[in-house]
Amino acid sequence: MKIGYVQFCPGLNEPEKNLADIERLVMSAEEADLLVIPELANSGYNFASKKQAFDLSITIGDSSFINRLVELSHKQNTHIVCGINERDGDKLYNSAVLVGPSGLIGKYRKLHLFMNEKDIFEPGNIGLPVFDIGKARVGMAICFDWYFPEVWRSLALDGADIICHPSNLVIPGLCQRAIPVHALINRVYIITANRFGTERELTFTGLSMIAAPKGEVMAQAGPEEEVVAVVDTDIAHARDKKATERNDLFTDRRTEMYRRLIDT
Amino acid sequence: MKIGYVQFCPGLNEPEKNLADIERLVMSAEEADLLVIPELANSGYNFASKKQAFDLSITIGDSSFINRLVELSHKQNTHIVCGINERDGDKLYNSAVLVGPSGLIGKYRKLHLFMNEKDIFEPGNIGLPVFDIGKARVGMAICFDWYFPEVWRSLALDGADIICHPSNLVIPGLCQRAIPVHALINRVYIITANRFGTERELTFTGLSMIAAPKGEVMAQAGPEEEVVAVVDTDIAHARDKKATERNDLFTDRRTEMYRRLIDT
Repeated sequence: MKIGYVQFCPGLNEPEKNLADIERLVMSAEEADLLVIPELANSGYNFASKKQAFDLSITIGDSSFINRLVELSHKQNTHIVCGINERDGDKLYNSAVLVGPSGLIGKYRKLHLFMNEKDIFEPGNIGLPVFDIGKARVGMAICFDWYFPEVWRSLALDGADIICHPSNLVIPGLCQRAIPVHALINRVYIITANRFGTERELTFTGLSMIAAPKGEVMAQAGPEEEVVAVVDTDIAHARDKKATERNDLFTDRRTEMYRRLIDT
Repeated sequence: MKIGYVQFCPGLNEPEKNLADIERLVMSAEEADLLVIPELANSGYNFASKKQAFDLSITIGDSSFINRLVELSHKQNTHIVCGINERDGDKLYNSAVLVGPSGLIGKYRKLHLFMNEKDIFEPGNIGLPVFDIGKARVGMAICFDWYFPEVWRSLALDGADIICHPSNLVIPGLCQRAIPVHALINRVYIITANRFGTERELTFTGLSMIAAPKGEVMAQAGPEEEVVAVVDTDIAHARDKKATERNDLFTDRRTEMYRRLIDT
């Protein structure tokens, strides 16, 4: 199964440019089964106001942006995970959608909001869903979620083979140190699709990466490069949770000893 | 607060040599508040039989080995965490003790047993306790426990500032990639005290390390070096869980979304 990231520089308040960039880059990609596009790729990130965020938001059920993603997915016979600024009634969510050639498959709403996102978005309220796309089961996490080991673990325990991680990371290389370790200890593939560029006081740091279930880094982008990378994976590696012939990283868990994790 | 590791090569079936090595190395250490000694340091690791493991086990309440650790702790005015082969009735545990100048403070029994340890030891049955030693709160994990993010997270959530990690690691550098990430995402100090040397078919890989709450590696030993390293820490760094001025890595957790972690 071929998976990849799209690293580019979305513009704040430039939804048409952003969609054009996404179309151009996805159409330029070599054959892939799954491509991941950064966080808030339709709208840009660093909104000047909540009003601006609203003006740049989209409703999943009625969105030309999503429709174009589905068309793109159909044309390229691929699946796409893309970060979006989602409006639901009078609320905004920092979300990711998963689309395939036949339409929308699922969505995720960021659980752990970073900094001033707390003024704009509601915290995610639909948990950590996992979707079966045939060749693999796919989960999603968004940017700052990386800091929380519970996110990767929950998705892996629910059967995710690949975790798609649309991001707008601002600290150079910090998340990228952790991603291969999250992949290793959960035995999953992780695709971190980060953006680059500057919006007002924030500079985004690129270095998109794909990590494999033994902690290998299979691909990594430069810090300021517009690039699509696709690698070939073997999903069986994500379904083998054995650390040794006598140790399975999931069945060896001592869940009765982990209650502290959900005690508030 | 000064914390350190003791890296050495215990001998299988050489308890007197092991104790002598520990005494020599702890007495040679520069001033420290806490020193960590590898897993199963009294007995060696790779037992030929369960009978041999029994013959080399000690009972915590009645053990000249523990008494000598306490004396050593008193002489050097330090705390010591040391991996031991613990006997309790007719059962064995792969345990660690925490001793101070005034005596035994606590113990931990390894939750996640590696490979053939499953034939020798009972899985740990006393959870993941945290002990207050005045200058810091201390938790313990042993060797293969490193693979389970629940261990580090539970100890950190229960207030551990420092996690002591006596080890007999056999895969070169794998755990050592993960330790700084576990330290970073939980904002704790971690002391991995590993051994070196070979016992029958197993070769242990040294590279003991101390990682700090921002993921820094403060000290790391060579692969086959007998060495004591002590570094100076600021425990306030382990009590600051802020990732940004608006993000606290603990209070930002979405515990209601993490139930999958304890569902069996």
